[in-house]
Amino acid sequence: MADLPKALADAAAEVEIMLDTVLAADGAPERRIYDAMRYTTLGGGKRLRPFLVMESARLFDVPKASALRAGAALELIHCYSLVHDDLPAMDDDDLRRGKPTVHKQFDEATAILAGDGLLTLAFEVLADAATHADAGIRAALVLALARAAGVRGMVGGQMIDLEAETKTLNLAEITELQKLKTGALIGFGCEAGAIMGKAPAKDRSALRAYADTLGLAFQIADDLLDVEGSVEETGKAVGKDANAGKATFVSLLGVVGARKKASELVDQAVSHLASFDARADLLRLTARFVVDRRN
Amino acid sequence: MADLPKALADAAAEVEIMLDTVLAADGAPERRIYDAMRYTTLGGGKRLRPFLVMESARLFDVPKASALRAGAALELIHCYSLVHDDLPAMDDDDLRRGKPTVHKQFDEATAILAGDGLLTLAFEVLADAATHADAGIRAALVLALARAAGVRGMVGGQMIDLEAETKTLNLAEITELQKLKTGALIGFGCEAGAIMGKAPAKDRSALRAYADTLGLAFQIADDLLDVEGSVEETGKAVGKDANAGKATFVSLLGVVGARKKASELVDQAVSHLASFDARADLLRLTARFVVDRRN
Repeated sequence: MADLPKALADAAAEVEIMLDTVLAADGAPERRIYDAMRYTTLGGGKRLRPFLVMESARLFDVPKASALRAGAALELIHCYSLVHDDLPAMDDDDLRRGKPTVHKQFDEATAILAGDGLLTLAFEVLADAATHADAGIRAALVLALARAAGVRGMVGGQMIDLEAETKTLNLAEITELQKLKTGALIGFGCEAGAIMGKAPAKDRSALRAYADTLGLAFQIADDLLDVEGSVEETGKAVGKDANAGKATFVSLLGVVGARKKASELVDQAVSHLASFDARADLLRLTARFVVDRRN
Repeated sequence: MADLPKALADAAAEVEIMLDTVLAADGAPERRIYDAMRYTTLGGGKRLRPFLVMESARLFDVPKASALRAGAALELIHCYSLVHDDLPAMDDDDLRRGKPTVHKQFDEATAILAGDGLLTLAFEVLADAATHADAGIRAALVLALARAAGVRGMVGGQMIDLEAETKTLNLAEITELQKLKTGALIGFGCEAGAIMGKAPAKDRSALRAYADTLGLAFQIADDLLDVEGSVEETGKAVGKDANAGKATFVSLLGVVGARKKASELVDQAVSHLASFDARADLLRLTARFVVDRRN
């Protein structure tokens, strides 16, 4: 039986080392921005997105060094998005992963630039020959990550989310928003292995379907944690959405309905992996994990 | 005799069409962020950076479609940097290219996200097969632009610039700052043609030397405009650096000294192009243009 908690912890440790490597400040012209980038990126987080890259890569026998670099690039994008999302003009959060957010620990200008630096570094990491010997794969990774992170992906979702503060979204709209805001990066995580492994189209679309379902389950769990979790468990402010009167899966479905929906999505996500052998077992367990987590 | 004003205007018109194409909002999930990205990118600017890409590409017979896409990607990076640089937490500027800045015309959150969207789109444009049939060249362009734009390039320079508000830099420090803040993107502009044309190393380093000198001349001219130009001419606030007590080439060298230095740099820049034939004539004229411009 695959041991997910151990696998997650092992992967997180390896990702941490890779992030530390790509964020090495040796010979850098300026230290403060590296301090801010390292402060927000290192030493925390579940590293779920890089884990998805590594597990999707495992299905196609992709070398671990390639998977780790692609996973680190994805995590850099995730981290930049948190830094910018926490800014006063955006969500105005003071706490992230149990620590002061970057603009509180440093200042707002540093947070803006550190986010820009992390975003740019992600593409530098992917385009570097160290990520994969095949330049076609490197270019395909850059293209896929840019699409997932950009205005037709995560950034577009964040914009819709901001606008949702002034109008109430229905279930279809919330689902679309989350598919972009959270789902797009999770989708890249699951497709990255297929890209690096030059997988058949049917495998790539199975992983895409798994990712879409997983992303939605992940977000419903996030909404449940916002209602039921504590600051101690989640390392960030809770109850924000409810207090802001924002529509969420929980406000639209109720706690019981949201929990039921999340559970159905877990089963669906697992069913999308039916064509894969035991090498997909950790991905199967991950679907359950994202709805059962406490942070 | 090459006609630089006409060549610049023609190139700007072609770049405008390409930018309009890559910023097409068809089927986009969210319109406001596209509105902001198009507002800040289209309809203005000298398009000097894309022009450098196109002229360096000309030296190696690179197809114009490739040069235009690489030039557009570079301009997207330049535009994002202006949007973030103008934010209240950064330079806090209200006016850019004669129009209200993005955070004044829209709002601060939209400006942060629009900048993130432009930055991400630049890499999407470069990685797309439409930019060049050779994936190795696409990956090399991504790598070079990410390095030029990131923490060891432009973003690092912006961070040093912010810190310069609290300490006075000397001439060597100002030169280093500007090499990163302004010079790195100009450097990519001049090297992009060599990358796409798989130029010999000696040609690439000649273009790099030209770019370094040109970038410095460009910045000295900017500092002179900040002292001598008008809001009407430059389309942005003037006298800001002097009022903020920031060290500039003008404060360190005086107006006459700065003008003399810029003129020497023009001659040096032209000398770096000695090995190229008449196809480099527009680049030669560009060196003079950047110090004589009034905006």
